[in-house]
Amino acid sequence: MSADLYTIQQKIIAFRNERDWAQFHDPKNLAEALSIEAGELLENFLWKTTEQSRNFSPEELKNVKEELADIFIFLTYISEEYKIDLLSEVEKKIAVNETKYPAGKAKGSSRKYTHL
Amino acid sequence: MSADLYTIQQKIIAFRNERDWAQFHDPKNLAEALSIEAGELLENFLWKTTEQSRNFSPEELKNVKEELADIFIFLTYISEEYKIDLLSEVEKKIAVNETKYPAGKAKGSSRKYTHL
Amino acid sequence: MSADLYTIQQKIIAFRNERDWAQFHDPKNLAEALSIEAGELLENFLWKTTEQSRNFSPEELKNVKEELADIFIFLTYISEEYKIDLLSEVEKKIAVNETKYPAGKAKGSSRKYTHL
Amino acid sequence: MSADLYTIQQKIIAFRNERDWAQFHDPKNLAEALSIEAGELLENFLWKTTEQSRNFSPEELKNVKEELADIFIFLTYISEEYKIDLLSEVEKKIAVNETKYPAGKAKGSSRKYTHL
Repeated sequence: MSADLYTIQQKIIAFRNERDWAQFHDPKNLAEALSIEAGELLENFLWKTTEQSRNFSPEELKNVKEELADIFIFLTYISEEYKIDLLSEVEKKIAVNETKYPAGKAKGSSRKYTHL
Repeated sequence: MSADLYTIQQKIIAFRNERDWAQFHDPKNLAEALSIEAGELLENFLWKTTEQSRNFSPEELKNVKEELADIFIFLTYISEEYKIDLLSEVEKKIAVNETKYPAGKAKGSSRKYTHL
Repeated sequence: MSADLYTIQQKIIAFRNERDWAQFHDPKNLAEALSIEAGELLENFLWKTTEQSRNFSPEELKNVKEELADIFIFLTYISEEYKIDLLSEVEKKIAVNETKYPAGKAKGSSRKYTHL
Repeated sequence: MSADLYTIQQKIIAFRNERDWAQFHDPKNLAEALSIEAGELLENFLWKTTEQSRNFSPEELKNVKEELADIFIFLTYISEEYKIDLLSEVEKKIAVNETKYPAGKAKGSSRKYTHL
């Protein structure tokens, strides 16, 4: 059982402050960093079939886990910059998506809401 | 005060299952989606100075929040696919980073650990 | 038959100069822009099978073409910034790849050169 | 003076065919690869100021050149897949941009055409 979200976000901020890195962490750079990490995550899947990516070796899986963690860390830094409560935004976004993609209409379709 | 992480991750999965979208959610596509959302997040900062991005209009801030939420949603789907406990991986990653970037050596430096 | 590369790169630069946009075109922003466009290109393929993406509608194909053009335009701006002759760099990179991936060893394998 | 574009695109295709890599080169994977390379390009600018990125070391500049070349290589593969004449699409896109961003209105502004 892992610690709760709030405790971990505090740890992430403390890690930065101990290293005096807030000076580099303007939001533009943080968004760049997150995008770069997302590319590194994607690299694990490049040239792979779905089947291969569902049968990753322990080493591949370890890489995926580290990239997911990195992305979460940058989500936390950007949220902290703008005083955003990430989970509360996620809840709002789910509500928005429920309107954009009503279960009845969107069922079994991969179309964008503008094409439903 | 937002709901806890576990409750929200359950909501995200339920949202998908009600729409029968698991069939599209192989991990390769999810990693693509996350990377695309990260690009959309970054777009909010393009051509902007740090000062401008620290003084976003309410509309710009709303866009940023929605992109952060979307990224978190795809983090959740990928974690679910591999049965990953995201927060526990974040904790491990912080521990790894503490070794890579010892507070003493990394203080005030933006260098990559391989160049410290 | 299209105009030659050099003529088109000149056009791209002239387009910018007529709009006084060089002031925004520092290389960091240009690299961000290129990465954002690459995400938009990728969005055309999201949730699609290989077969679907080989049978794009004229509208989808038009989108792909526009994104490829946008990416080329940003390649040109970055090259111009650093006085890089893009084609000559491509030739050098092909030579590097020929060493990294000798035809004999790499034939039929999608492995990274570090794993050949 | 570098070779012309057409000659180099032929070289890029020949490089692939000698390695039997066309089997991996479906357009979805190629778009992923291009996006990953764009992230690697961007990494060169992360945490850097504009001034720093205008004064890259020879090693940093070499990295930038290689990423630009890689991106061009994937542009070529995707163009080949769809029988796209890249330069002719770039010319069309410049014409589109001239309509979206008339020199008079867009002069000195970094706004998106939808906000001009």
